[in-house]
Amino acid sequence: MGLGRMPSGDKRAAMTVAELDDFLEREFPQMYVHGRIWHVLELPPHGAKLRMDYHPSQLRPGGTISGPSMMALADFALYAAVLGAIGPVGLAVTTNLSINFLRKPEPRALLADCRLLKLGKRLAVGEVCISSEGSDEPVAHVTGTYSIPPR
Amino acid sequence: MGLGRMPSGDKRAAMTVAELDDFLEREFPQMYVHGRIWHVLELPPHGAKLRMDYHPSQLRPGGTISGPSMMALADFALYAAVLGAIGPVGLAVTTNLSINFLRKPEPRALLADCRLLKLGKRLAVGEVCISSEGSDEPVAHVTGTYSIPPR
Amino acid sequence: MGLGRMPSGDKRAAMTVAELDDFLEREFPQMYVHGRIWHVLELPPHGAKLRMDYHPSQLRPGGTISGPSMMALADFALYAAVLGAIGPVGLAVTTNLSINFLRKPEPRALLADCRLLKLGKRLAVGEVCISSEGSDEPVAHVTGTYSIPPR
Amino acid sequence: MGLGRMPSGDKRAAMTVAELDDFLEREFPQMYVHGRIWHVLELPPHGAKLRMDYHPSQLRPGGTISGPSMMALADFALYAAVLGAIGPVGLAVTTNLSINFLRKPEPRALLADCRLLKLGKRLAVGEVCISSEGSDEPVAHVTGTYSIPPR
Repeated sequence: MGLGRMPSGDKRAAMTVAELDDFLEREFPQMYVHGRIWHVLELPPHGAKLRMDYHPSQLRPGGTISGPSMMALADFALYAAVLGAIGPVGLAVTTNLSINFLRKPEPRALLADCRLLKLGKRLAVGEVCISSEGSDEPVAHVTGTYSIPPR
Repeated sequence: MGLGRMPSGDKRAAMTVAELDDFLEREFPQMYVHGRIWHVLELPPHGAKLRMDYHPSQLRPGGTISGPSMMALADFALYAAVLGAIGPVGLAVTTNLSINFLRKPEPRALLADCRLLKLGKRLAVGEVCISSEGSDEPVAHVTGTYSIPPR
Repeated sequence: MGLGRMPSGDKRAAMTVAELDDFLEREFPQMYVHGRIWHVLELPPHGAKLRMDYHPSQLRPGGTISGPSMMALADFALYAAVLGAIGPVGLAVTTNLSINFLRKPEPRALLADCRLLKLGKRLAVGEVCISSEGSDEPVAHVTGTYSIPPR
Repeated sequence: MGLGRMPSGDKRAAMTVAELDDFLEREFPQMYVHGRIWHVLELPPHGAKLRMDYHPSQLRPGGTISGPSMMALADFALYAAVLGAIGPVGLAVTTNLSINFLRKPEPRALLADCRLLKLGKRLAVGEVCISSEGSDEPVAHVTGTYSIPPR
């Protein structure tokens, strides 16, 4: 799908996977209280793929992973995609996030596949598909909006 | 993307495009007060592609198509995908619809590409990408939930 | 509920009900193809109350009012609340709208009660409760975001 | 606001505040890894008021509380309101949650005020206003849907 408004020459990521991984771990230490469970896997043009390792603190009754864990993963994936596209802007903030829970995820690592639907001057909008590692059925689908500070 | 829970042999559409087109025109005559502007183009497994012809009543200041017209198209596409998958159930109702407006559409026909993310016994969840005919940039992205009556 | 960021002396409406009614009818003639069915009833501080008269084109199977009609009403109410607060800015655009359908409305006039949850420089966020005239049970609940052009 | 479909005599809470507090701590031990930070304050008819104590793990750059912490609070408040209305059903699951972030919360306790907009046989829909303790400006607004298992 085309993403308009952006000249095609501008589609390289503004950060490498390693730069982004470092930036996130440095800027968001509280996300790593349970260890290094967040991993940026790939930064395709206007997108991001992440993995969240399984940690028992995510567990809920019935042996499933908590909704807020999935929301945190989706929010992180959207942020990674925005940073990957425009570079490290610490003050970009989520303004809206909407999640549909589709299936109960087993206690395993979750993968997030995010792509930006719009990357404007003031707002970025993206969607995230979350699935369990080793399965291609989505367990949750998320759309979110980031407000980008004036540059 | 896999759609799980459904045996692969069950992925044929429960209605043909022509049957669905007829059903919608017969059951929703008020949708056609401006003529036959709604067209089911295709019923891929667990999805639906529709076209909404342009009609001047959709116009808004700045020469763009109104938000409610896009919401109506998305809702219709979700309904078409549900009917295509499970057959004509007149009482399936939308319980939630969330739309992100991405770009201003020009006064042209709009295409809706819907796929179901989940088709459970009680709820169906889907997403819809709306674009202007002749362009592949999305103008709006929608997620919605339908409640399916007991069968 | 407080609405912060705005000095209390700034809470008078920027337009009167009559000015707003005129502005909407002049700027959005296509909304009035079925007659003058939209009415701004009141502009409380950072809010708006509207009525949408019943018109047969809104009808759906089962004698209920269509979802897109309710979405149009909610979008109009949010826009009215934004204009009432900041004055006539034709270019404010909806960026996101999320609706929960709660009960099937009877074929009667619908009332929309909108209040802004945030009125920032760039974004306004509001919620809308929709009910049938003569009842106080909500038939739909909506949240939406407007992007406000630089002033 | 009326909440329909429910005889008015049925508006007493199905659980007391103490019973619900105990149930949550027993069933969701992972929510309490940072101590007993979740408190049900009140169970008004078809609603729930909760407090989430501040804990440094919630902190984000700029001295604000993380989005996922607010989402967890909203989800918990919706669940508490559903349980308060229908009694302890461990298998009620969130199907959809949509959050608008309105202002950056300071590092203080957050209050959640939830009311159910609909309590049907199969679905419950509610909204949650989140504010910082000692302030009446909302920092986030949430709507969510719970699927209720057959009883």
